[in-house]
Amino acid sequence: MPSYKAPLKEYRFLMKDVLEIERYSNLPGFADASIDLIEQVLEEGAKFCEGVLAPLNKSGDEHGCTRHADGSVTTPPGFKDAYKQLVEAGWPALSSDPAYGGQGMPHIVALAWSEMVASANMAFGMYPGLSHGAYAAIHQHGSDAQKNMYLPKLVTGEWTGTMNLTEPHCGTDLGLLRTKAVPQANGTYRISGQKIFISAGEHDLASNIIHLVIARIEGAPAGTKGISLFIVPKFLVNADGSLGARNGVVCGKIEEKMGIHGNATCVLNYDDATGYLIGQENKGLMAMFTMMNVARLGVGLQGLSQSEVAYQNGLAYAKDRLQMRSLTGAKNPDGPADPIIVHPDIRRMLMDAKSFNEGARAFAFWTALYGDLLHASPDEKVREKAGDYMALMTPVIKSYLTDRGYAVATNCQQIFGGHGYIEEWGMSQFVRDARIAMIYEGANGIQALDLVGRKLGANGGRAIFAFFNELDDFAHQNEDDAELKEFVDAVKGAKAQLQDGTMWLMQNGMTDFDNAGAASHDYLNLFGITALTYMWALQAKAALAAKKNGGAGDPYYDTKLVTGRYFLARTLPDASAHLVKLKSGAEPVMALAAEAF
Amino acid sequence: MPSYKAPLKEYRFLMKDVLEIERYSNLPGFADASIDLIEQVLEEGAKFCEGVLAPLNKSGDEHGCTRHADGSVTTPPGFKDAYKQLVEAGWPALSSDPAYGGQGMPHIVALAWSEMVASANMAFGMYPGLSHGAYAAIHQHGSDAQKNMYLPKLVTGEWTGTMNLTEPHCGTDLGLLRTKAVPQANGTYRISGQKIFISAGEHDLASNIIHLVIARIEGAPAGTKGISLFIVPKFLVNADGSLGARNGVVCGKIEEKMGIHGNATCVLNYDDATGYLIGQENKGLMAMFTMMNVARLGVGLQGLSQSEVAYQNGLAYAKDRLQMRSLTGAKNPDGPADPIIVHPDIRRMLMDAKSFNEGARAFAFWTALYGDLLHASPDEKVREKAGDYMALMTPVIKSYLTDRGYAVATNCQQIFGGHGYIEEWGMSQFVRDARIAMIYEGANGIQALDLVGRKLGANGGRAIFAFFNELDDFAHQNEDDAELKEFVDAVKGAKAQLQDGTMWLMQNGMTDFDNAGAASHDYLNLFGITALTYMWALQAKAALAAKKNGGAGDPYYDTKLVTGRYFLARTLPDASAHLVKLKSGAEPVMALAAEAF
Repeated sequence: MPSYKAPLKEYRFLMKDVLEIERYSNLPGFADASIDLIEQVLEEGAKFCEGVLAPLNKSGDEHGCTRHADGSVTTPPGFKDAYKQLVEAGWPALSSDPAYGGQGMPHIVALAWSEMVASANMAFGMYPGLSHGAYAAIHQHGSDAQKNMYLPKLVTGEWTGTMNLTEPHCGTDLGLLRTKAVPQANGTYRISGQKIFISAGEHDLASNIIHLVIARIEGAPAGTKGISLFIVPKFLVNADGSLGARNGVVCGKIEEKMGIHGNATCVLNYDDATGYLIGQENKGLMAMFTMMNVARLGVGLQGLSQSEVAYQNGLAYAKDRLQMRSLTGAKNPDGPADPIIVHPDIRRMLMDAKSFNEGARAFAFWTALYGDLLHASPDEKVREKAGDYMALMTPVIKSYLTDRGYAVATNCQQIFGGHGYIEEWGMSQFVRDARIAMIYEGANGIQALDLVGRKLGANGGRAIFAFFNELDDFAHQNEDDAELKEFVDAVKGAKAQLQDGTMWLMQNGMTDFDNAGAASHDYLNLFGITALTYMWALQAKAALAAKKNGGAGDPYYDTKLVTGRYFLARTLPDASAHLVKLKSGAEPVMALAAEAF
Repeated sequence: MPSYKAPLKEYRFLMKDVLEIERYSNLPGFADASIDLIEQVLEEGAKFCEGVLAPLNKSGDEHGCTRHADGSVTTPPGFKDAYKQLVEAGWPALSSDPAYGGQGMPHIVALAWSEMVASANMAFGMYPGLSHGAYAAIHQHGSDAQKNMYLPKLVTGEWTGTMNLTEPHCGTDLGLLRTKAVPQANGTYRISGQKIFISAGEHDLASNIIHLVIARIEGAPAGTKGISLFIVPKFLVNADGSLGARNGVVCGKIEEKMGIHGNATCVLNYDDATGYLIGQENKGLMAMFTMMNVARLGVGLQGLSQSEVAYQNGLAYAKDRLQMRSLTGAKNPDGPADPIIVHPDIRRMLMDAKSFNEGARAFAFWTALYGDLLHASPDEKVREKAGDYMALMTPVIKSYLTDRGYAVATNCQQIFGGHGYIEEWGMSQFVRDARIAMIYEGANGIQALDLVGRKLGANGGRAIFAFFNELDDFAHQNEDDAELKEFVDAVKGAKAQLQDGTMWLMQNGMTDFDNAGAASHDYLNLFGITALTYMWALQAKAALAAKKNGGAGDPYYDTKLVTGRYFLARTLPDASAHLVKLKSGAEPVMALAAEAF
């Protein structure tokens, strides 16, 4: 039976020492969130995730969800009770707006909570996770009446939410969508059509489900310019907030999937369902993107969450399993063999995992802090930079963290040998669950295109140049720090390569768009490695400072430094390969005509 | 429903143009195997794989195997009939010894057959695949009486075979095994103990199962020096070849696995089962390795088989699925969108797959030809080189082809977006099935250790230096061929890096064995990339020659060249990263003490 232990010390180190969030105690939300309070909150969260959610993960995978003839769906045993506990403890409200009953904590705290939930039970975590996306869209784009009607119960978790985009013939290309909305005299719409791959689309956890649905109003322009966003509750809501009639949306099927069996992935059939327009007609796609950007950070974190829990279990097995002797002499001479952690190739897989996890977590939290500043800072300049960074980093986090998270989970499964392949040990599930994160919320190839096609050039490249400046500043400010030298050199080297790749894209991606497309995957990976190199430099600096400030006796800080050095020696070298590949451009990729395959 | 089409033209190109196997028509087996005859055989095989085995692949995954209360096991619907057809058509006999009823075809032909079977239905293919391992061990180490008793029915496929190594507490470290063998007065042994992860360990396809079991004879030395190999038939065989009493071996459980559900992975309980010693007492491990080397090439091929079939289905989907417009203008203006094959990032994944598959296949076939020469050549020098190469290349093929095969299958699944994650389209199964090949027959980390720890230094490095000489000779002989220049340069560059890595290992791996262990994974990958670069150079040379010899009108040869160039531009650059990483040595890998994790 796999287990999970929340990385609380990592959260504290990141927030206190690396990001120094107490600097922001003048901002709303942060004022009431001292490091110690955050730690208390996360400790409570850890207990819930470790004690309630993690034990349901494997059985959730085994049982999956069951659809009944009437379209209702039963979640795996234990999920309903766990969800009830979740709601009673108030977790869904953690970072929500106090105006609607939320606790108003910084998003960075909610991010830590989300990681713990996803590590403990990714399929379960998607139920409240999707609700948060629906909350965000209504909060940002809904009318006051809509906010008052739907937000309070999404905030408590009494109701959950969904995002309805995909149809059988279109996922990425939403301009093709066919679900139609017919205006009614009373201002509502009749929604008809079929949506597929709707996570948490139907279940027995909550009394109502608030579907956010994109559809085309009759007579609207073709393509993405004719898409509107609607609220379609499973049960209509009366003016007093009580539940009314069952709406015309039914789960027609749940999919058999590779993983996340505990989450119901539904075909939803809309048949003259009553929908309420949210925001303006034909502006639905932009409103949906609001939800998707929130969701994309969360999905990136899912990649990390599976590599973290896979690492923890791989590590435990590596310490426990006795097999062969160390190449440099027995380390466990009294036992029949040495624990496999003594073998360098096992250690390589563990260090790959550890250095990725801690670097990736820093990157996600560093970015999430900009998400908080974007909303909370009174300084327009800060908000502008924060918005730039959020836009720029989101596709990198979504794609790099999920690609690598899957690879790391696969490696940790490998540590178990044959035992990793059988379901009994739970490692297969981490890999199977991690796999979806590379696909949904915009497949990783789409993220790479978003990065090179939209984010890089926005506002004349303002965001990427700000990032380059930040890396230069870091190198400059720490030039004389002998202890930090290898990290500073690494940041310089990685930045030079990323800049080289960026310049190549700017020169060649505009003259032939296929150059941008062909380079996008390697550019995104080069970006991810550079970002994690910088995160390791920040962590190394914070660890050195902490050692000088009374932490010298804590091996934690030395472990940080050793782990960071591993990243520089064993992951950073991939940056050059990505640079060479991306600069080879479209020619090798496109030379074979489509018909010649 | 996924489909499969055997790559017959690839087989012909490899055997005729690249490997020129008609050179060897003076050798036994080859004399009767003209290119045209081989093609006819493989065409028949292709029909069987495409028409009989492939349609059972998905349902085999869904149904899996069922164990009954008496320990008997039922294979998925259709498997039994397909196996009957397989036997009736004589496929198991393809490359077996004519002295025991085999057809005596070169192993390279059997390799092509194995690839087709594994692509069509990997779980099914393991039943005859394991038999071939048992055949090889008895053929090489058995007494004449044992050969006469067991080989003919293994050759026809009336009986199947298994390999029994792993026990709950030991897989890699077979020295720890506990299964015991008690000598009896009549020369037989009583075998007792538990074996796990026994593929094809129990089933309903054949009338008998010949288990090859390693066990420790009472009083034998501890560790690997006390391991003997036994034949333990499910049904004892009477002197006249008829089946006698049921032996004391029972399937206690079949495992729930990530994939290959159609193959029964068994816990086998031996309770005073009658066993027959094969070869000498306490020399069982060496005999078992005979089977394992045959099996390792086969497992490498399984990696390729899944990336091949995943590629074929990814390609079909990429041509069919309409989504978004090409960045360089609509390519399907009359349709609602362009087929996704127009998008460079989709093309990148397809070209990655195609260039890997064709390079990997060439590498496996090139090596298998040495396997034939090892057995068939009258020239001792040729046999020596062939043996050296087989030993050196086997761990690379096993590990590189399965690691990359899994990654490629994952990429081809990615092409399907959300449809790749649901089981309906079959892409998940290719990934899940491919995953085991990285683990069994010696986990890939063990292969890497075998390469750097045993194979590299054997006979003073004779094998690796022969390979370097071959690469130098190729470069030298083709120096003036302008059309081949980029491939010649690539071979030179890759060889220089592999030599650099080899020298580093020779200098540093001996002084600190952990350096060898820490470098092994990256060294193996550097080796794999170098080998595939050479294979692409050989294929490019053959394609250029074929174009001059009447093939100019066939786009096949231009496609070959374009695909090879893609490999040079987009995969070869990883070689440098592996070199840098391996030369960083053990320090970053081992710096964190085991207790500090």
